[in-house]
Amino acid sequence: MEGTSEILEQAIEQLAKLPGTGRKSARRIALYLLKQDESSVMELGEALVNLKKEITRCTNCGVISDGDPCSICSSVKHQTGKVCVVEESQDVFLIEKTNEFHGRYHVLGGVISPLDNIGPDDVRIKQLMERINDEEENIEEVILALNPDSEGEATAYYINKLLKPFDDIKVTRIAYGIPMGTELEFIDEATLGRAFASRNTF
Amino acid sequence: MEGTSEILEQAIEQLAKLPGTGRKSARRIALYLLKQDESSVMELGEALVNLKKEITRCTNCGVISDGDPCSICSSVKHQTGKVCVVEESQDVFLIEKTNEFHGRYHVLGGVISPLDNIGPDDVRIKQLMERINDEEENIEEVILALNPDSEGEATAYYINKLLKPFDDIKVTRIAYGIPMGTELEFIDEATLGRAFASRNTF
Repeated sequence: MEGTSEILEQAIEQLAKLPGTGRKSARRIALYLLKQDESSVMELGEALVNLKKEITRCTNCGVISDGDPCSICSSVKHQTGKVCVVEESQDVFLIEKTNEFHGRYHVLGGVISPLDNIGPDDVRIKQLMERINDEEENIEEVILALNPDSEGEATAYYINKLLKPFDDIKVTRIAYGIPMGTELEFIDEATLGRAFASRNTF
Repeated sequence: MEGTSEILEQAIEQLAKLPGTGRKSARRIALYLLKQDESSVMELGEALVNLKKEITRCTNCGVISDGDPCSICSSVKHQTGKVCVVEESQDVFLIEKTNEFHGRYHVLGGVISPLDNIGPDDVRIKQLMERINDEEENIEEVILALNPDSEGEATAYYINKLLKPFDDIKVTRIAYGIPMGTELEFIDEATLGRAFASRNTF
């Protein structure tokens, strides 16, 4: 027997399942919660239960959202015409934070990965094509903002091919290169090579 | 606006309050939970709510427990006669794991710290003295297992002084010295000095 409380052990076990949380941090969190007053622990518990119960996805762009359509798809501040294709909802939040892009998004909910048995029909590519064909969306540019790994590359390539027949739609990709504030010395060869291949006029 | 879901932001805010969890890990945990099925998220939420609602403390030894008295105080496997004084419940669990000690515990719930306005009456020292005077407990040895910091030292000193009048009670302390598997090179001077002062015959 490790402890004197089965309830504590259960909480630790549940917390230890979270990403980045081992048994030690789970124990620390549980003991921390025990020291808090009941209302704040209830708040946490309820926030987690609500998370799963009440959250939905925007049927248009696929982002995690409280309402459908989401606040981006229904906002006039986010112009139609440009759609940025990302893998997951969190990518939307990251891009929104940069304040660099003021268009709409399309969350694929994954990338094509034959090794994991994920084909084009398992991600929201069909829905993207429906939006392309929707005249109200009036899409002129599709910006691919996928991760620079082999699955992301394959997915970008696939989407680019699907969009080829649309002469009036520009397909672009976000730039991959040296991260800001990093010294070249610490950059891997692949990134450095990519940065050279994608060089711009100064 | 950072996200498209107020519910998600609330969950992240609650999670970010946990020790060792910043906003980034909180976001990662929330998005992870969103991918799980509803029942497992409910389980986590309930485990946390139960933690605060249903857990109690043993009125005898002060450990976090499901019942009162706790499973240690009511177990015949844990001999009376020896009582190990610790600061927090988690210390009990740590010591139990070593399987080196088979007596009872006494959780102070803190240590004397004049700077933080914590005096002897704010920790469970009075309750310890009651147990000392309780003939059923039949205490022969009090083992002080407090942290080797100034508050822990002060508390140990204070308890030792209170126990002086009891001629038939032995007061001991756990050994402080070089941790197992560590090279001397990496040990601070205070620990090394302590290890010399507490040296034993081989």
